Amino acid sequence: MAVHGASDQVATAVRELAFGLAEMTGMAPEITDDPDGMDTNMIRLVQFDEALSLRLQELVPRQALNEEGYAIQTIAENGGESIVVAAKSGKGVLYGTFHLLRLLQTGDLGGNLNILENPRNGLRMMNHWDNMDGSIERGYAGGSIFFKDNEFIRDRARIRDYARLMASIGINGAAINNVNVHHTETLLITPRFLPDVAAVAEIFRGYGIALFLSINYASPIQLGALDTADPLDPRVRAWWREKAREIYGFIPDFGGFVVKADSEHRPGPFTYNRTHADGSNMLAEALEPYGGIVVWRCFVYNCLQDWRDRTTDRARAAYDHFKPLDGQFKKNVVLQIKNGPMDFQVREPVSPLLGAMPETNQMAEFQITQEYTGQQKHLVYLVPQWKEVLDFDTFARGEGSEVKKVVAGETHPYAYSGMAAVINVGNDPNWTGHTLAQANLYGFGRLAWNPDLPEEAITAEWVRLTFGKDETIFRALRSMLADSWHIYESYTSPLGIGWMVNPGHHYGPNVDGYEYSVWGTYHYADCQGMGVNRTLKNGTGFTSQYAKENMERYESLESCPDELLLFFHHVPYTHMLHSGKTVIQHIYDSHFEGVEGVKAFIELWRELEGRIDAERYEAVSERLRIQLAHAKEWRDVVNSYFYRKSGIEDQYGRRIY
Amino acid sequence: MAVHGASDQVATAVRELAFGLAEMTGMAPEITDDPDGMDTNMIRLVQFDEALSLRLQELVPRQALNEEGYAIQTIAENGGESIVVAAKSGKGVLYGTFHLLRLLQTGDLGGNLNILENPRNGLRMMNHWDNMDGSIERGYAGGSIFFKDNEFIRDRARIRDYARLMASIGINGAAINNVNVHHTETLLITPRFLPDVAAVAEIFRGYGIALFLSINYASPIQLGALDTADPLDPRVRAWWREKAREIYGFIPDFGGFVVKADSEHRPGPFTYNRTHADGSNMLAEALEPYGGIVVWRCFVYNCLQDWRDRTTDRARAAYDHFKPLDGQFKKNVVLQIKNGPMDFQVREPVSPLLGAMPETNQMAEFQITQEYTGQQKHLVYLVPQWKEVLDFDTFARGEGSEVKKVVAGETHPYAYSGMAAVINVGNDPNWTGHTLAQANLYGFGRLAWNPDLPEEAITAEWVRLTFGKDETIFRALRSMLADSWHIYESYTSPLGIGWMVNPGHHYGPNVDGYEYSVWGTYHYADCQGMGVNRTLKNGTGFTSQYAKENMERYESLESCPDELLLFFHHVPYTHMLHSGKTVIQHIYDSHFEGVEGVKAFIELWRELEGRIDAERYEAVSERLRIQLAHAKEWRDVVNSYFYRKSGIEDQYGRRIY
Repeated sequence: MAVHGASDQVATAVRELAFGLAEMTGMAPEITDDPDGMDTNMIRLVQFDEALSLRLQELVPRQALNEEGYAIQTIAENGGESIVVAAKSGKGVLYGTFHLLRLLQTGDLGGNLNILENPRNGLRMMNHWDNMDGSIERGYAGGSIFFKDNEFIRDRARIRDYARLMASIGINGAAINNVNVHHTETLLITPRFLPDVAAVAEIFRGYGIALFLSINYASPIQLGALDTADPLDPRVRAWWREKAREIYGFIPDFGGFVVKADSEHRPGPFTYNRTHADGSNMLAEALEPYGGIVVWRCFVYNCLQDWRDRTTDRARAAYDHFKPLDGQFKKNVVLQIKNGPMDFQVREPVSPLLGAMPETNQMAEFQITQEYTGQQKHLVYLVPQWKEVLDFDTFARGEGSEVKKVVAGETHPYAYSGMAAVINVGNDPNWTGHTLAQANLYGFGRLAWNPDLPEEAITAEWVRLTFGKDETIFRALRSMLADSWHIYESYTSPLGIGWMVNPGHHYGPNVDGYEYSVWGTYHYADCQGMGVNRTLKNGTGFTSQYAKENMERYESLESCPDELLLFFHHVPYTHMLHSGKTVIQHIYDSHFEGVEGVKAFIELWRELEGRIDAERYEAVSERLRIQLAHAKEWRDVVNSYFYRKSGIEDQYGRRIY
Repeated sequence: MAVHGASDQVATAVRELAFGLAEMTGMAPEITDDPDGMDTNMIRLVQFDEALSLRLQELVPRQALNEEGYAIQTIAENGGESIVVAAKSGKGVLYGTFHLLRLLQTGDLGGNLNILENPRNGLRMMNHWDNMDGSIERGYAGGSIFFKDNEFIRDRARIRDYARLMASIGINGAAINNVNVHHTETLLITPRFLPDVAAVAEIFRGYGIALFLSINYASPIQLGALDTADPLDPRVRAWWREKAREIYGFIPDFGGFVVKADSEHRPGPFTYNRTHADGSNMLAEALEPYGGIVVWRCFVYNCLQDWRDRTTDRARAAYDHFKPLDGQFKKNVVLQIKNGPMDFQVREPVSPLLGAMPETNQMAEFQITQEYTGQQKHLVYLVPQWKEVLDFDTFARGEGSEVKKVVAGETHPYAYSGMAAVINVGNDPNWTGHTLAQANLYGFGRLAWNPDLPEEAITAEWVRLTFGKDETIFRALRSMLADSWHIYESYTSPLGIGWMVNPGHHYGPNVDGYEYSVWGTYHYADCQGMGVNRTLKNGTGFTSQYAKENMERYESLESCPDELLLFFHHVPYTHMLHSGKTVIQHIYDSHFEGVEGVKAFIELWRELEGRIDAERYEAVSERLRIQLAHAKEWRDVVNSYFYRKSGIEDQYGRRIY
């Protein structure tokens, strides 16, 4: 192994490659720092710089690489074959090295390599919703890997493993604390905790990950003894500038702030009659001298809605709040927009805000942690859902303005953009609680790197890296993963209406759970029909937030896709779907079928007994048993609810209670 | 003041009378221990004994008094008038003294007194659901007055005040810890805490209150290192005998144990295939040598019911479990039976178990703390509800077998019987959160003493003792208190069906809150109608647990009272009530009327501004404002739910959402 390059990430790449080769071959490779050495059958890790020899400079099409891209090529030299991993940056070398390790592990190293990869998205980010008491909001895989008992965890081995995991899938940023920043977490940006934050950032740095912190908008009051957090108040601005200076003193490459402001009782600029532009620009101004950015979340809505009020529509909120501010944000502010207009439901349309702000940096927010999608007790592979979102054409600049192009900064020229996700890891030994939920973590990273990767390619990579090359395993898991989102959807809430979960923890069926609440999430089911009329014609007008092509599709009953019907329209139970079924019969059928789908998972998984180590085999079996029991509960509660409400019999006479 | 009698309670009576007189007159009374002294215009507190002079022996009809009774008489002596309070026991003297203080405070002392009072119920008991961490299960008036941070509260002034409060209304027993006995509370019967328990018992003793503890049935396992709690195992029996000996070493007049066994996941004899008789008799055997008793709760039911199963009926459970065991319990066991077959709903029928066991001691359990009746945010005077229960004729020994006679041991000759209640006090300065909720505490004590006291008499006593003799105040409060139960009922769950609350905390409307749950509490509402068919003819057969007269009344749609209709029958929304309204119209009307009723409270209360100190006036005003807002929420949620489900319009066209 020959190495050229002195950055932290190149050093990491060397360590990881040496470790990986030793694990796979049982032999420690020799390492030399003479990249032009005459040995044969070498792996050469090369970070371009002026000291590099002309021969290596010309090996790969350097001009085709962006700052984080890499090339992997097989070259003939010295009478043998060598492999070159070359990049402009240490991060590129590291990503290329992990790619090479992937090829080594899956045994796909044959033939001449001629790989050139550039990440499509500049920001590929994880959001941890970890609290310093060690709990994780919406975490289903144990406690925090960063915090416990309101302190940082001293043993950082797990954090190093985490950083390796992230870098191996191309993640380059992570906010380590919950967007709901409570009292103790507010102190993360003070000398009380900054040395600890810096220690984590140092580990991250070696793996090319910028550390971000979620901040409390009211920090100048809690920490600064000011009586205001007004973003236009000079004292507040000065306080944040000084705060940024202090943070960068500890962490020179600090990523920036993630901010949930004026949302679900969090403080924000609204308190002072200021806009979100005012609020975020003040923070951006403070971070600007150091290259930091502000990730400003757009999850802003009235969370004290009166359920009697059918004119207010939570789905409208992000667009209504942010669209009018287009062009008012500083260049180091990026708006983080949830994939849908509501909140990570199993099915909702794409947020109309995505693409709608040509003059404002945007990134998309996804949720890997399965808050509303089975909480890692149910198998739900989210890559197909994310693919649908990424491939959705916003028509923001005419046809071909897919979400993936918007967030890659290709539709509008953004200074910062990309993809973020709420991560699903915790201190469970398998990281994600459900072993198969690792596929979501892997898949998100891969899609953030390249949203055009086909679902099956991602699945194949993950299965082979995780369980080896057994074709039986691959066929079973490909089928289970591919069907799982649809199956979960079919036994939970129907036709895009969402929710129907127990309040608070968001698990398990409760059709009216949020129906008479303040959260703005209603189905309006009565004895005639159900759904939310969001049309422009006589509903909330939400459809008008989309570009004309999408607006017309959703506005009309004829063209609205079945799976989103109840999101956009209130219809009778007897309304005929494009599928040829009535709404009520669809509810009955899909709920019965969903349970059968889980039974099929169990059958498929049983075939793998003996092919997978007993520990993982049993752990997944146990989750599938739970999923089946709970799927039956969903089926029976939802079917009974709508049977009792509609009085319409199942046309197949199946048992409904 | 002349005193004869040496018991702790007489000493307390003297102190209380002296304190009360000093408070009312500003002068400390002189006290002599020569009961025959020749002073005139005396108050003589007399406990009968052999040393008493013949003159005083003959003053009152001693043979008419029971052990806790008392006489208060005006006598002419020494040329003036004296008042004699005489009793066989120190407790009798104390109760008589509080009665005298009541007369002094309300100014009803005029004319010749000739009062003779005996308590109807032997056991007049409070159940505290206090946990040692300081919380109170179903407590709405602050934290525990006994415990904090898993220790006893060192400052016992509040406990002394509490004991005074209890004695003044005739309470003679109190279990100080929650019937759900968790880990720390299990230690209350060990030397770790027994000195603290004894200190509280000593305070109680002075006020004639026996201290009881709720115990963990599995104590021999947790504390005794046995591997079983089988009540027929000789080691277990020996462990409890030794435990009783130890407890009585600390507290010679310890009252006994309160036990929640085999209920809501608490351990009990079922674990060992033993009966509740086996389980309770073992404890009774241990307590018997010391005069202690076992209060064994009958709140036993399947709390993991499948909502799909319509044959299991939670209402049946207590009778089904206990009735077959009649005659098998030891004489120092008393069964504590909730007033209704379910769980302290705003309206339910009387438990058919009351009176149904001629050979087994029974007492009734009521709930002063307003778990399902507004949690001391809503004004709900429960005396009318309790009166209905107490006056209910069980026909257990033919006509005239009212519940009040059953629990007084008059229907069947019980060795122990009476009334218990889950108390509503906490460390709030006003004891009960809602100032007017004090009336329930007062009323329960008075009814336990004499269940024949008219509601209005109790109201009058409480209002005058609490707010003085202002007639405007009395008229307003009499009206508010008298109407409050009915008004709360009218805007919450209709026609005896119960529940419709949010799970867990049991507050606020949630019609389907328990509909698809394991708790056995369903309304079965569909688009046609609602209610639980508990008839013998084609329902769960619960009606057959009543004596024939009641069974027939409930079994028939014609004779079943409107207010319990949905408890016993599943009927269409169009079913005509005796009131001349359909069920659905009744739901709409009562919910609209209920809110108007709360508005009327507010009007009535406003008239009292300036007549009541500002602190209490404002505190009650604030609660009434909350009650109105929440009553509107109940109204709208319940009406909307049934309008959406039934599709039937309100005949008056009022706004339903």
